[in-house]
Amino acid sequence: MALIVQKYGGTSVADAERIMNVARRVAARREQGDALVVVVSAMGHTTDELIELARQITRQPEARELDVLLSTGETVSSTLMTMALHELGQPAISLSGAQAGIGTESRYGRARILSVDPQRILKELGEGKVVIVAGFQGISEEMDITTLGRGGSDTTAVALAVALKAERCEIYTDVDGVYTTDPRIEPKARKLREISYEEMLELASYGARVMHNRAVELGAVYNMPILVASSFRDVPGTLIHGGPEMVEQRNKVSGIAYDPDVAKVTIRGVPDRPGIAATLFEPLAEAGINVDTIVQNAGAEKIADLTFTVTRGDLEKAIELVRPIAQQVSAGELVSDSNLAKVSIVGAGMQSAPGFAARMFRALYEEGINIEMISTSEIRITCIINESQVADAVRALHKAFELEQAE
Amino acid sequence: MALIVQKYGGTSVADAERIMNVARRVAARREQGDALVVVVSAMGHTTDELIELARQITRQPEARELDVLLSTGETVSSTLMTMALHELGQPAISLSGAQAGIGTESRYGRARILSVDPQRILKELGEGKVVIVAGFQGISEEMDITTLGRGGSDTTAVALAVALKAERCEIYTDVDGVYTTDPRIEPKARKLREISYEEMLELASYGARVMHNRAVELGAVYNMPILVASSFRDVPGTLIHGGPEMVEQRNKVSGIAYDPDVAKVTIRGVPDRPGIAATLFEPLAEAGINVDTIVQNAGAEKIADLTFTVTRGDLEKAIELVRPIAQQVSAGELVSDSNLAKVSIVGAGMQSAPGFAARMFRALYEEGINIEMISTSEIRITCIINESQVADAVRALHKAFELEQAE
Repeated sequence: MALIVQKYGGTSVADAERIMNVARRVAARREQGDALVVVVSAMGHTTDELIELARQITRQPEARELDVLLSTGETVSSTLMTMALHELGQPAISLSGAQAGIGTESRYGRARILSVDPQRILKELGEGKVVIVAGFQGISEEMDITTLGRGGSDTTAVALAVALKAERCEIYTDVDGVYTTDPRIEPKARKLREISYEEMLELASYGARVMHNRAVELGAVYNMPILVASSFRDVPGTLIHGGPEMVEQRNKVSGIAYDPDVAKVTIRGVPDRPGIAATLFEPLAEAGINVDTIVQNAGAEKIADLTFTVTRGDLEKAIELVRPIAQQVSAGELVSDSNLAKVSIVGAGMQSAPGFAARMFRALYEEGINIEMISTSEIRITCIINESQVADAVRALHKAFELEQAE
Repeated sequence: MALIVQKYGGTSVADAERIMNVARRVAARREQGDALVVVVSAMGHTTDELIELARQITRQPEARELDVLLSTGETVSSTLMTMALHELGQPAISLSGAQAGIGTESRYGRARILSVDPQRILKELGEGKVVIVAGFQGISEEMDITTLGRGGSDTTAVALAVALKAERCEIYTDVDGVYTTDPRIEPKARKLREISYEEMLELASYGARVMHNRAVELGAVYNMPILVASSFRDVPGTLIHGGPEMVEQRNKVSGIAYDPDVAKVTIRGVPDRPGIAATLFEPLAEAGINVDTIVQNAGAEKIADLTFTVTRGDLEKAIELVRPIAQQVSAGELVSDSNLAKVSIVGAGMQSAPGFAARMFRALYEEGINIEMISTSEIRITCIINESQVADAVRALHKAFELEQAE
C-alpha cells in the first residue's frame, strides 16, 4: 500500500457532477489499496467571483482580509468532495489548511509554507479515511489565515507529499501532461512521458498552464516525483522527476518554451564600473517588477549597453524608475521595444553537448527570424525575437529538433 | 467609552451596497467613541444556496462537513464588512468564530457554546480596531468547525457581549423592534420600548422572526441588555432586559403571540397511573418531535384523556409512534386534529393579578371563537383554537387588552 497525494484543479471540481466524477476516481483508487490525501482547488471561477465581490466594496482590499475571503473557495470544494465520497460509501474527512498543519509566513496573498505538521492527516489516514485538504491556504504563527498565491494548491499538494513521505504527488488538471511545446501553436507537439524538474521549470513559460513553478521547485528540492495527468481522461500523464541517471542519459531537447509578452529596455553608454547594475535594478525589485533576461555588452572605453526585459505591463513603470538613475550615472540614451517575445529550447545535458545553439540560430535564420537578444542557462537557450514571429519560431524549432518523433 | 456588541443579519448584509451602508453606520458609531464588536450573518440567501450545493452531491450531507461548508457564508461577509470599513478609513479586522474564541460542543449543526476566550478580540480592540466576527460558527475541542444552528449569529453576539462584559448587545435586523403582536395581522400593533427576557421568550412564536430564543435565554441568564432595532431605518428599537424593578412595576399584557401551525393528538381512556406519560413521550423526544402543550383531564375511574400538540409536519410521525404504546397500555381510541392554532397573551406579573384569563376567554367568546385547550405559565395564557380564526383572535385580544395605546 502506497501513500499518494493527489491534487484536482478548479476545472476538475467546477460543479456537482464533476466533483462526483472525481470522487468516483478517488474511491476506485482507494479500493485498490492506496492511502490517499486529496488536495482540491476552488470550484471553477469561484476565486475570480470572490475577488469581484471584494472589488464591489473596495478597489484595494486589504491583503489579510482578501486571504480569508479567498480561502473560503477551497473550503467549500473540500467539503463537497468529502460529501461526494460519503455518498459513494467511502469514509473521508475534509481538513482546512490549518487543520492539515500547513504553517506559513504572514505574507498575505503569497505566503510561503514554513512548516507542515501532518499529525492530524496521519490520524485520519490511520482510520482508513481519504483526507480531503483545502488547497491554497495555510495559517500563520499569529493564527491568521493566509493564501499561497497563484498555483498555491499545487504547492499544498507537493508540500504535503514531502511531509507525509508519499510515494508521489499526482496533479490532475484539464491538460493530460507536459508537451514538447504548446499544442495550440504546433499541432504536432508530443506529450512527454517524463521530464526532469529543471526542464519542467524552463518549459514553464508555457507550462505554467500545467502546474506552478513553486510546486515544481519544491518537488526538485525534496526529489518528490510529480505526475501531471488529466482528471477527465484516463490516459498516461507526464512524470516529473529527478535523479542523475535520468539527466545524464539524455542530451537532447525536451521541448520548446515561449512567452509572447516581452518588452525590453536598453540603456546605452552605461559606465562599466562596479555597483552600477545594483543601482539600476534595486528600485525595480522594490517596485515588485520582475526583470527577466539581462544582457550587457561591454564596449570600448569602459562603457556598455545594458538591456533587460520585463513584461509589457511593467514597461512604463520600469522606464520611469530607471530613467533618473541612468541620468545620475551619466549613461546615454534609453530606448525600449514592447513588441517582443521569447522562445527557448529546453533540455537536460544541453550544456555538455555542442551544436544546440548553432542549430537553433540556423533554424530561426532559415525562417527569416531576427534574434534581438540571446541568453543561456544550463539546460536552456533563449532568443528574444519579434512578437509577430513567435508561432513561426516555435514550429521551426519543434521541427529542427525532431520533437514530433516518439521518444 | 462603552463596549458594544452589534449583530447584523443576512438581509442587512445581502449585497455590497447594504454592506457599505452598515459599514457607514458602524464607522459613525465608532467615531462617537464606543468600542465595537460586530457579528455578521451570511449574505442574504447564502446559507440556503450552500445547502442546495450540498444537496446536489448527496441527500444526506454529513453534519461535520455541512458545518464547515455553511461556516464559509459568515466568513465571506465578515471579510467584506471589514473591507468596507477599511474603505471608509476605519481600522478593522475580521475574526472567525475560532479566532474570536467561541468554543463549542462537537454537536455539529446545533452546537452549544461552552466557552468564550475573548483574548484576541481584546487585543484588536486595544489597537483601536472595530472587530468583525463571523457569526453562527465556533470550534470544538477537537479543533473542528461547528455551527450553532438557527439564529446562531444572535447567540454569538450575546455570548460575546457577556464574555466581554459589554454594556449591551444590539441586534440589527429587518424589523425595527418587538411589537405587541404581528403587524401583518393587526395593523394597530405597537412597537414596545422595552420588554423583559421572559416576555420576549413567550412572544417568540411570532417573535422568532425578530431574534432567536437561545440568544434571549443567554441574555436572561447573564442579565445582558439586548436592543432589537432596524438596520435600515434610524428609529428607536426595543430593549430586552430584566431586573426586578421592571417586572414588578407592571402587571399588564405586553403582547399577543400566535402560532398558526398546531396539530393535536388526543388519547382517550389513558390509565391514570405513574409512568404512563413518560412511556408515551419518550419515543417522541427520541424522534426529535417537539411536543408543545400537554393537557390531561383526569376523569372517573382512574382513566384520563391526554392531549398534546405538535407541529403539523410532525403529526403523522407522532401518531405512528404513539399508537402502539397507547395499545400496550390499554388506552382507548386515538383522535387527531391538524387545523389548530395557538394564541397567547403575554405579560410579566400576570400571575399575581387576577382577571386576565377571564378577560381573554370573554374576548374570544364574543368573537365566536371556541377554545379547544388552555394552558398557562407564569407570564402567559395560551388558548388552542381553530386555525381559521387565528387572525380574528389576535385582533380581538389586541383590542381587549388595549395594546394599541401608547405605554
